[in-house]
Amino acid sequence: MWSEKRARTALSCAVDGGEPEAARLVARVGAQGAWAKIAEGALGEPLARRAAATDVEVVERLAARVGARFVVPGEDEWVAGLDDLAHVEPIQRRGGLPFGLWLRGPGHLGALTQRAVAVVGSRAATAYGAGVATDLGAELAEHGVTVVSGLAFGIDAAAHRGALAAGGPTVAVLANGVDVAYPPGNTPLFEAVARDHLVVSELPPGAHPTRVRFLARNRLIAALAQGTVVVEAALRSGARNTAGWALECGRPLMAVPGPVHSRASTAPHLMIRNGQATLVTCAAEVVELVGGLGQHPVAAGVTPQRATDALTEQQLAVFEATPARSRVSSGEIALAAGVPVPSCLAALHALEDRGLVEGSERGWRAVPHRAMLPAPA
Amino acid sequence: MWSEKRARTALSCAVDGGEPEAARLVARVGAQGAWAKIAEGALGEPLARRAAATDVEVVERLAARVGARFVVPGEDEWVAGLDDLAHVEPIQRRGGLPFGLWLRGPGHLGALTQRAVAVVGSRAATAYGAGVATDLGAELAEHGVTVVSGLAFGIDAAAHRGALAAGGPTVAVLANGVDVAYPPGNTPLFEAVARDHLVVSELPPGAHPTRVRFLARNRLIAALAQGTVVVEAALRSGARNTAGWALECGRPLMAVPGPVHSRASTAPHLMIRNGQATLVTCAAEVVELVGGLGQHPVAAGVTPQRATDALTEQQLAVFEATPARSRVSSGEIALAAGVPVPSCLAALHALEDRGLVEGSERGWRAVPHRAMLPAPA
Repeated sequence: MWSEKRARTALSCAVDGGEPEAARLVARVGAQGAWAKIAEGALGEPLARRAAATDVEVVERLAARVGARFVVPGEDEWVAGLDDLAHVEPIQRRGGLPFGLWLRGPGHLGALTQRAVAVVGSRAATAYGAGVATDLGAELAEHGVTVVSGLAFGIDAAAHRGALAAGGPTVAVLANGVDVAYPPGNTPLFEAVARDHLVVSELPPGAHPTRVRFLARNRLIAALAQGTVVVEAALRSGARNTAGWALECGRPLMAVPGPVHSRASTAPHLMIRNGQATLVTCAAEVVELVGGLGQHPVAAGVTPQRATDALTEQQLAVFEATPARSRVSSGEIALAAGVPVPSCLAALHALEDRGLVEGSERGWRAVPHRAMLPAPA
Repeated sequence: MWSEKRARTALSCAVDGGEPEAARLVARVGAQGAWAKIAEGALGEPLARRAAATDVEVVERLAARVGARFVVPGEDEWVAGLDDLAHVEPIQRRGGLPFGLWLRGPGHLGALTQRAVAVVGSRAATAYGAGVATDLGAELAEHGVTVVSGLAFGIDAAAHRGALAAGGPTVAVLANGVDVAYPPGNTPLFEAVARDHLVVSELPPGAHPTRVRFLARNRLIAALAQGTVVVEAALRSGARNTAGWALECGRPLMAVPGPVHSRASTAPHLMIRNGQATLVTCAAEVVELVGGLGQHPVAAGVTPQRATDALTEQQLAVFEATPARSRVSSGEIALAAGVPVPSCLAALHALEDRGLVEGSERGWRAVPHRAMLPAPA
């Protein structure tokens, strides 16, 4: 009979991180129970076959060769903030708590992420964006903040390099095993981070990156940090996916502006414009926004103040009746909330003043995620 | 006995626009009553002496020489939006409704400001800022929106020039009489606006600009437009003063981002960061925000649908496992994707139907870049 930890090791080898169903199964019946059910075909035949073909010892030998370790929830190095992933909705069919994390390097994951900010962005960064990311990485390191990123070309690499140049810690979260540098062009950077700081992955040594693995990886970047900064990004990009995870996890999302004609700044500008991200221009502004760095925003037993906390019961009812994904008329909202139309309109205007809903000629909608953020002081 | 209009003319000659006490006095007892009280010393001896020394006919001769007219509240050319100034708190001891406005040019003030946006900013503009202001002026003109600004060097002049270049109307609001170009370096621009469009001032012909007159003028720029865009500005600047008036008048305030290291973008970034201004990058976004101004949709928020969006998870896994640069067998793809061979084959054929992969006797490969293109409608 395997131990829970060994069952988690086996799960990390057989099941791609970020399979929400598998994560839910582990939450319900434990890792050993989940492993048994998966082997029986509870999550489908392909997964059962992969489980049957899994040789944990082979993976452990690969890990031993590069000095990688596997940490699981409850262990000293585990990060409480990751637990937020258990409560957020999947994005693009990825989500859930990782079974465990493979770590490589002398850094202590829990200690490094006590004060940590994710800096992410485009692979196709401009010279401006790369310069800003490098400066930000270095300044964050000077503020004693760990820079978390994904070791990709462009913004990610620039942020890691800035942190390293300032002698500060940096954590690289990979979409492949910690035994391999990806992309190969970033091998020297990978080696520096692995030698002096920490490389993290939920995938076992030997695993190769795929598109879905990048998407799943992004949730770890967002959850390991107390806030995420997007430096440059296209409208459809991994950085926007990471930004989505940051919002889902209730972490402050920040974005760096740039010249208006720069396509690389399109997504940061859009996210600032629609209120999802706060504009930041330097590390001091990031540290100010992330505030209480040193504590994960959702600490055990502590409920953060929400923008909805100060609402009257009627306003709350109206807010909860307002959809986020479509626009509806005040009449429909009044009906759904069980509130007279004039009171509903008054409540909508009060909610609009708080940035919780948004009205236009086409109707009203809830401002996405805003309720998840702490209310401004 | 003077008419109300003639009393307003006299007031505009004797009392600096933006004296909130004088404006309140007019609101309370009318222009004739206010004039009598001011002459009696109700607002102090210096003002009483200035009233006594006022020669309206001299001013009217100066106005006639340049073809300037004086319009007062209630007249056809008057702008209802100015009335908002009666209800806002003074800023830096300036405020209140103007007694009237001196106008020069063929434009109809009321008609021109039906669809108007103020574009303001630094005299010490960068090449980037001046370029953005010119583009914005031209694009707003193309949207049929009047560009309101202050004829200063830098951003103001660039915005006026952009509008003129696009053949659109522009209104210059001065802190001196409409008979004189200020600054003298902008004389050709002043003459173009006065000849083809409209120059506005609450100060009488012959009046020279002073610092407080600039501050008072800024409230007219903000109130004449349906929204204000700050392109570049220092932390302490006239543009921030105008921005303050826009907020006081309940007009949308917008700001253009720029490179984070540019001092000229400090105030726009701060105003966006603290939630006073909305980030805008182009005229379409301005028009959308100011609302009802135009009908052109903003393209930036539109994300094209990807060809991979509609795939099942298994199809996506198979697609990800199919290399673009070489051909491999369906068996190899099944292994890499963790999918049974029959399901893999079915997925490959579905992907082939979508043009995402291509099969031949030598095996399967992904069609390069196809996933980046929008799906056919």
